[in-house]
Amino acid sequence: MTNNGFHVAVVGATGAVGQRMIETLEKRKFPIRRLTLLSSSRSAGKTLTFKNEEITVQEAKPESFEGVDIALFSAGGSVSKQLAPEAAKRGAVVIDNTSAFRMDPEVPLVVPEVNKEDLKKHKGIIANPNCSTIQMVVALEPIRQKYGLKKVIVSTYQAVSGAGAKAINELNEQTKAIINGEEFTPAVLPVASDPKHYQIAFNAIPQIDKFQDNGFTFEEMKMINETKKIMHLPELKIAATCVRLPVAVGHSESVYFEIEKEGVTARDIQELIKTAPGAVLQDDPAEQIYPMPADSVGKNEVFVGRIRKDLDEEKGFHMWVVSDNLLKGAAWNSVQIAETLIEMGLLK
Amino acid sequence: MTNNGFHVAVVGATGAVGQRMIETLEKRKFPIRRLTLLSSSRSAGKTLTFKNEEITVQEAKPESFEGVDIALFSAGGSVSKQLAPEAAKRGAVVIDNTSAFRMDPEVPLVVPEVNKEDLKKHKGIIANPNCSTIQMVVALEPIRQKYGLKKVIVSTYQAVSGAGAKAINELNEQTKAIINGEEFTPAVLPVASDPKHYQIAFNAIPQIDKFQDNGFTFEEMKMINETKKIMHLPELKIAATCVRLPVAVGHSESVYFEIEKEGVTARDIQELIKTAPGAVLQDDPAEQIYPMPADSVGKNEVFVGRIRKDLDEEKGFHMWVVSDNLLKGAAWNSVQIAETLIEMGLLK
Repeated sequence: MTNNGFHVAVVGATGAVGQRMIETLEKRKFPIRRLTLLSSSRSAGKTLTFKNEEITVQEAKPESFEGVDIALFSAGGSVSKQLAPEAAKRGAVVIDNTSAFRMDPEVPLVVPEVNKEDLKKHKGIIANPNCSTIQMVVALEPIRQKYGLKKVIVSTYQAVSGAGAKAINELNEQTKAIINGEEFTPAVLPVASDPKHYQIAFNAIPQIDKFQDNGFTFEEMKMINETKKIMHLPELKIAATCVRLPVAVGHSESVYFEIEKEGVTARDIQELIKTAPGAVLQDDPAEQIYPMPADSVGKNEVFVGRIRKDLDEEKGFHMWVVSDNLLKGAAWNSVQIAETLIEMGLLK
Repeated sequence: MTNNGFHVAVVGATGAVGQRMIETLEKRKFPIRRLTLLSSSRSAGKTLTFKNEEITVQEAKPESFEGVDIALFSAGGSVSKQLAPEAAKRGAVVIDNTSAFRMDPEVPLVVPEVNKEDLKKHKGIIANPNCSTIQMVVALEPIRQKYGLKKVIVSTYQAVSGAGAKAINELNEQTKAIINGEEFTPAVLPVASDPKHYQIAFNAIPQIDKFQDNGFTFEEMKMINETKKIMHLPELKIAATCVRLPVAVGHSESVYFEIEKEGVTARDIQELIKTAPGAVLQDDPAEQIYPMPADSVGKNEVFVGRIRKDLDEEKGFHMWVVSDNLLKGAAWNSVQIAETLIEMGLLK
């Protein structure tokens, strides 16, 4: 860092997450000397605003990273695979929001509330976990720390923005078409590059990302494998079912978990969440207080409620976890990693 | 039954379920001599069509059931509590779609594919289970029969029509308001009689029915208790999280279950569902085939897919179960109970 801040690059600046990254950098007053906005050649030439200044988006190339201190990537896995090593080679610290490097044993996969110590081992690339994973581990980590964690079964209720700006547009246009009794042709969801596309408006699609040979989707396997890596729990029993909903922003999760310790009450778990970093307890059934995606939009926190003890398993509990998937699930966690690198003295 | 059919009464005829009951009776060519349509005084006087004939809806009173053979109730628990015994006293067999009598040990709670033998013990009132319970037990029963069933953890994705015609209207009006950038005031969901109401359009509400002291909602406890009763499994370990979605019709469920037997594969479960009564297997990930609520509308069957073995528990499996909550979840199951009573010679 020079005296007046870092040279930051945002790759995928025109996307749903890229735009939230730029907003978050501004809102957090991140120490920026220079901001370089990069994208595919298709979006290059557009202008975006940062601190009331217009910045022209440039096509991302290896040379774009000369002199860059921090590069935030969110332009798809293939772009990251090609350009993140180029950025790292030129001395930038890459914080990558794609799945390209997440399971690479050489790459730290970090949620600052959970495993910021892993940042110390980085070799130029740091991976930002999958959106649905991040919010879950923020809620589970304080529980693991105090009571141990044996098993997790999660069913997700995910917003379309996780599939990008095109998916948000598809939800809006389809909803209008249905309300007006007009025809429409699904073209984006569940997976743009898969052969079949289905209606998302007033529907629920039990497929996020492509199917794997074991019958789970890649999104489900991301939740399973990333949770184990972030929490340093390779033996954790964990399963996921991931479902796309007609919600623009805000992922929700129904999480069943079993702890190691006996004699713990729902009240004990609530007390833990109350003081957990990055989490907010919204849990008062008598007052109908629980988290909902519509309330989470634009907020950095992970909201937790509906905490209750299983009726059969002494060590089993249920909870409902909600967060803005574009912020804590993506842009905010990436910027937070950058802030944490600075705090820990890991960025020069 | 006289030679030319039964005298059938539908109580709550103008409601979302009542209308589906009338349509289902017509579609199934149910042997009807006379159809009496009943409602609250508020809706009395409206006319509804059955087999191209206009029938005027009358206010439901004890005397309305004189001469009635079969009375299908779906007008809310308090109406059933008051009038179902009056109908039974006058010789009608009551099939009640409310929660009023479901857990009464004297009242059979029936899903014909699962426990039609229980009909033999009826004393004038038969209960139709909760919508979210019915579709789940249709999928679980063939599995229980062959492999035993130890544990169930379900997270639901429920349509607003489960809360009645007013809730469907609220979803539609709110969606329009949001798209047009207009103001709106939630007034029906999650529970009309609860103090607080929340946005359902583009949102997910983790409350269906009122909260109980144990932190579970009544809807969740219905799924837990009714499943045990219908499947004759008082010792079953079962938990539910019930969530309302911006979907008009069609409930979905993410179901984790553990069986008794070892060495069973996902393929074995798929083969069972393929030939299970009332169920349709829609499960081919390679072809992106899985059930979705939008596809279930207007169909009597329960659709099952995403069947896969848990990655940690040898006896654990996951599946995704979808059905039209107004049909198999309510109107069709009620009419099916009536048809089964006739088949079994239990209706004179």
